[in-house]
Amino acid sequence: MRLWDPAAGAAAEAHDYIAAMLPDLAQHGLLGDMSPESTLEAITIADSLEEAVADADYIQENAPEQLDVKQRLFSDLDRLAPQDAVLASSTSALLPSAITEGLTGRARCIVAHPVNPPHLIPLVELVPSPWTAPETVARAESLMAEIGQTPVRVEREIDGFLLNRLQTAVLDEAFRLVDGGYASVEAVDACMSDGLAPRWSFMGPFETIDLNAPGGVRDYVTRYQGMFMRLADTMRYSADWTGAVLDTVEAGRRARVPEKDLRARQMWRDRKLMAHAAFRHGQN
Amino acid sequence: MRLWDPAAGAAAEAHDYIAAMLPDLAQHGLLGDMSPESTLEAITIADSLEEAVADADYIQENAPEQLDVKQRLFSDLDRLAPQDAVLASSTSALLPSAITEGLTGRARCIVAHPVNPPHLIPLVELVPSPWTAPETVARAESLMAEIGQTPVRVEREIDGFLLNRLQTAVLDEAFRLVDGGYASVEAVDACMSDGLAPRWSFMGPFETIDLNAPGGVRDYVTRYQGMFMRLADTMRYSADWTGAVLDTVEAGRRARVPEKDLRARQMWRDRKLMAHAAFRHGQN
Repeated sequence: MRLWDPAAGAAAEAHDYIAAMLPDLAQHGLLGDMSPESTLEAITIADSLEEAVADADYIQENAPEQLDVKQRLFSDLDRLAPQDAVLASSTSALLPSAITEGLTGRARCIVAHPVNPPHLIPLVELVPSPWTAPETVARAESLMAEIGQTPVRVEREIDGFLLNRLQTAVLDEAFRLVDGGYASVEAVDACMSDGLAPRWSFMGPFETIDLNAPGGVRDYVTRYQGMFMRLADTMRYSADWTGAVLDTVEAGRRARVPEKDLRARQMWRDRKLMAHAAFRHGQN
Repeated sequence: MRLWDPAAGAAAEAHDYIAAMLPDLAQHGLLGDMSPESTLEAITIADSLEEAVADADYIQENAPEQLDVKQRLFSDLDRLAPQDAVLASSTSALLPSAITEGLTGRARCIVAHPVNPPHLIPLVELVPSPWTAPETVARAESLMAEIGQTPVRVEREIDGFLLNRLQTAVLDEAFRLVDGGYASVEAVDACMSDGLAPRWSFMGPFETIDLNAPGGVRDYVTRYQGMFMRLADTMRYSADWTGAVLDTVEAGRRARVPEKDLRARQMWRDRKLMAHAAFRHGQN
């Protein structure tokens, strides 16, 4: 695997970051058969984009989320990479059609959207443009599965893909509940972490309801759709997330974690995610 | 603790169910200082409602979700229980005001909504009616915390409380995505289980975004609200959950778990939940 970044020293920094992470991953059983040393040896730094992609099968682009930057980079990739290499973008905010429309090799281009941090969260959303070849999707999918990620296919491109649409639905209701004075920030978070997420962390929402009525999902929907539709009808608006509710949300969060401790809390999060990844790994 | 059920043999069945569960809970370190034997001895069966509540501090009602049934039962409880006992309903579908409006002791009544199965999912939503005394909320909260549950306060009663409102938001978008042909049932479930839920299972949605921008939640909302509002604007309708999409969802689920295997899959779910509860317990 080769890293390249146009900013001086950036690829070396990434290499150091990976090196620092590997012992922890190995200790949690998350490197498979590889040792930290052999893993690190397999990751080299290229001096130019040309060198980086020279004989690549698969290229993962991680440029800033600016359409013109990604368009230019994909144009370079399409020119420099072997003709049969898959060109994948990490974008979460741009549609693959917008990035690749004008390219000769646009059939081999796709979005492969990882979730941060990708070494601890397995999901990768595969989003084709209207002109992405089925073989491109299949090759990205099999590569992601091979390296232990969980690839999911988005059948047609849509703004936000799947993950950010589901996240938006939750956040929108979370802001409505706090804005309406129904619950504190902490109560909403606890409802998710100690109520909904334990089941969703290994089943997802459809399997959860499928197992929650004797006759499966049809039985469940038939029994409860009245309640769900009544609730959904009260969710057709958004609170203004930047309004007074943001003061409330910020105050709630800063009471728990002062701004100066945010960085330390992010490291706490990553340790929890690593423990969770190791737990999941042991469960499989 | 005393169990009572008007149906002949039902309380004894519940007692047997608990007895069968206790060795597993002990093995997973989920009984605290108690042994299965001492736990079971502390749970007795009462022959009448009167006997069950005679000197109770706290009563948890679990009758069917029918308003008239719960109203009658709460009227009996208010008459029979010691005057200072807290009367709590397990309802997920009825508002506490509707159940308790006419009662003399309505200030001591509250909803304490557990999540199934309550011995493996810690969340309990505490929902006051307009006339619930603050002391009633405080006493229910401290009892739930004492037995290792996670009580959260709903500040004012609202249809669906917090948990089912958040669940509705997710399910509504999940059905929209499948209905629109954007994703399979399995892809949506994987997005949650392998993407969103690992973080939400210990942080909840607000803490997740608070840690996802350098300056915390205000920084995050300022950066991304445009994207979130654009997505939310496309979620102002519900797909008809019972329409053609239900055939698709059911087919997707039955391809994974045939109807005859649903019961076994529910047991799989409960084993996974127990392992997850033990993992969380070890993390604290």
